[in-house]
Amino acid sequence: MKIIIIGGVAAGAKTAAKTKRSLPEAEVHIYTKDNYVSYSACGMPYYIAGDFQDWKQLIIRTKEEFEKSGINIHTRKLVTKIMPSEKRILIEDVDTKEVEYQEYDKLVISTGAEPIIPEYANGLKGVYPLRTLDDGIRLKQGMLKANHITIIGGGYIAVELVEGFIKNNKKVTLVERSQFVLSMLDEDISALVQDYILEHSNGLVKIINNDIVNNISETDNTVTVSTEKGQEFTTDMVVVAAGVRPCIDIAAEAGIKLGKTGAIKVNSRMETNIKDIYACGDCVEKVNMISNTPVWIPLGSTANKEGRVCAINVSGGVEDFEGIMGSAVLRFMDLNISRTGLTEKDALKLGYDTVSVIITKRDRAGYMPEVKNITLKLVADRRSHKILGAQAIGCGDADKRVNTVSIGLLRGITVEELIDVDLTYAPPFSTSIDILISAAQILKSKIS
Amino acid sequence: MKIIIIGGVAAGAKTAAKTKRSLPEAEVHIYTKDNYVSYSACGMPYYIAGDFQDWKQLIIRTKEEFEKSGINIHTRKLVTKIMPSEKRILIEDVDTKEVEYQEYDKLVISTGAEPIIPEYANGLKGVYPLRTLDDGIRLKQGMLKANHITIIGGGYIAVELVEGFIKNNKKVTLVERSQFVLSMLDEDISALVQDYILEHSNGLVKIINNDIVNNISETDNTVTVSTEKGQEFTTDMVVVAAGVRPCIDIAAEAGIKLGKTGAIKVNSRMETNIKDIYACGDCVEKVNMISNTPVWIPLGSTANKEGRVCAINVSGGVEDFEGIMGSAVLRFMDLNISRTGLTEKDALKLGYDTVSVIITKRDRAGYMPEVKNITLKLVADRRSHKILGAQAIGCGDADKRVNTVSIGLLRGITVEELIDVDLTYAPPFSTSIDILISAAQILKSKIS
Repeated sequence: MKIIIIGGVAAGAKTAAKTKRSLPEAEVHIYTKDNYVSYSACGMPYYIAGDFQDWKQLIIRTKEEFEKSGINIHTRKLVTKIMPSEKRILIEDVDTKEVEYQEYDKLVISTGAEPIIPEYANGLKGVYPLRTLDDGIRLKQGMLKANHITIIGGGYIAVELVEGFIKNNKKVTLVERSQFVLSMLDEDISALVQDYILEHSNGLVKIINNDIVNNISETDNTVTVSTEKGQEFTTDMVVVAAGVRPCIDIAAEAGIKLGKTGAIKVNSRMETNIKDIYACGDCVEKVNMISNTPVWIPLGSTANKEGRVCAINVSGGVEDFEGIMGSAVLRFMDLNISRTGLTEKDALKLGYDTVSVIITKRDRAGYMPEVKNITLKLVADRRSHKILGAQAIGCGDADKRVNTVSIGLLRGITVEELIDVDLTYAPPFSTSIDILISAAQILKSKIS
Repeated sequence: MKIIIIGGVAAGAKTAAKTKRSLPEAEVHIYTKDNYVSYSACGMPYYIAGDFQDWKQLIIRTKEEFEKSGINIHTRKLVTKIMPSEKRILIEDVDTKEVEYQEYDKLVISTGAEPIIPEYANGLKGVYPLRTLDDGIRLKQGMLKANHITIIGGGYIAVELVEGFIKNNKKVTLVERSQFVLSMLDEDISALVQDYILEHSNGLVKIINNDIVNNISETDNTVTVSTEKGQEFTTDMVVVAAGVRPCIDIAAEAGIKLGKTGAIKVNSRMETNIKDIYACGDCVEKVNMISNTPVWIPLGSTANKEGRVCAINVSGGVEDFEGIMGSAVLRFMDLNISRTGLTEKDALKLGYDTVSVIITKRDRAGYMPEVKNITLKLVADRRSHKILGAQAIGCGDADKRVNTVSIGLLRGITVEELIDVDLTYAPPFSTSIDILISAAQILKSKIS
């Protein structure tokens, strides 16, 4: 049995490791155009910030460790073609350009996603994407020499990078097409996040909203950025964090079906439409378990879970990956920002009759010296009373409340049931009636 | 409409406040033998520790604030008798011993619980209980003068007090009848807690296990403690934290039904067996929602919820309190200790065929400087695959994982479903596969 895995960052590395454990006699290969396998891409903003110094800490399992456990790692090898009828792939060596064919019994596509780089930015040396570990190392080197950095985009990674840059005392201009950063949150929450960023960055950060960068030009030393609304400014470097797209080209060419979102369509066993070809990780479409609709939200936690499920099925077992709930968390300095389920705007788009509440309350007893505030938004469906989602931000323990909701979403918990949950209480951990329960109580009175 | 509430710490205060808001024309009275109403008893260990200096911070709502909103507060008034057939109560003034009758339309019993003081300790000035705010103030004054303090009992409050005492550089001897402190946890967890206490108290703490204090004698300056197994030592003061019992005497005398646990039996609307008499808070029995068995676990969070439900029903509305899940949390220095649902020993007693896992894992990505370990125990029912409970300890964010499980318990979540939960992930908040998911994955393989 020969199993070939294309891509080896999160889902691919997980699939390889678990498959080899389940089928010790199988031949397991990872082919990647990258220099590294099995690393924490999510950790790069903290390496850049200087929270730790050695990028090697981001590597979860080295090539040597994989090879010691009998997994063959082929780095700098680009898979250019999948030939399902012959059950083989075409591989090009990134350096020598030599090509070779390899046959497989089972193939796993975990090619991940790639940053969307606008055409005007192509090939400019002052422009930095952040996707691979090499990108992270290069970005950090660039940052250390820069005084002013421009970030295109205002999503999770952009906000994490702002933290890293201001910790290094860099000036930052962030250009975000939406009204506020973090447009994947409802505006009543993302407005608060943006305020917090501006108030807690020592004047180093400027945010341009409702505008798009439409040109970048560079000389030897400076980069000039222009926006659609006519702003123009010079900067030392530009980080492009304006979204990613799934790497699906070779899959699509081979006749592997894509979903509505443009990512690879798989069933709950991570099988594509072609026999013996599986896919997992950032290149595949997922199901939102609350709305039961296809979504494409590439996240490291999901990739790892999919890799596990993929490995079990590749190895002859049976396991299902049920989908995602839109759970996410990030940090900006002392502020925790997290969400699960549907935002109110998502829910409205999907046709729900939403009812929501947004409240601010202490995260623990008011007399505890560590007390901080949390702002929580809870969204429910007026008809079924089911909780649809939660968003929380705060310097207090916001993430705890959101995770608590996430498990309730799995079983369609109602507002009334949420009131009944017995949450842990002691003064260092919560108020005697936790903000989550308070919010549910208010929602209940709004519904009835 | 005249509503009388007996006792006003948590449940009683909550009932009074919410009832008055719902029925502004009603006459609402709280009678208490205590000097204060509406305070956070759970916060006293932190006041004693010196985490904050003014005990008045523990008062949630002052007598004056209650009276401003039209609620009548009668402190130092002991209710000695309930006469349901006449719908009145007998009240004795604690100072003057004068008695009076008061009639009610609806009566709420929220008399709380009282510490169990062994007979040999009665009336000794070196013996300190910790239940009322006055107890807390007196205990702190005593502690400040003491060098060596003995604690009888090793439950939540005892462990919280150990933290407070060693922060004040006091020597502590704790006598606990069980093998380890925190006997409400499984021994594989409580053993770790006890080790942690001993290792993180600068040699100030000695714990005597499997033994019981059976005598205390005192002179002017010292107190001598003797144990059943023949130990004898002198100490400066003794804190009795060996359990509490529900204050049910006047209720029982009046014919109000008690439950199996000896606490007042109420239905989900907080109604006793006698018309127009309600009860809530630490004096009532609760239902464990997982096992559907009666339990008596007096906790501030539960008391507050019961007070809310009681107020709604007293005011003519309809609301149910469904029960508890045994959720609790406490802190010892940097260690967080929390539980929800059934422990394995509880579950075995109830006849479940349990399967459990105990694992230690990082609470966030290993390269984050703040990373700490958590040890998590997950207990499930082998037959139904349902999760029965979780216990977690660690200097990392243990409590988050336990709260996440608590909401799953409400809906009888299975091991397989827990694997599917989409928990928030970012390097400062969790590992890409959270310890909770890892534990569920191991449990699944143990079951199948």
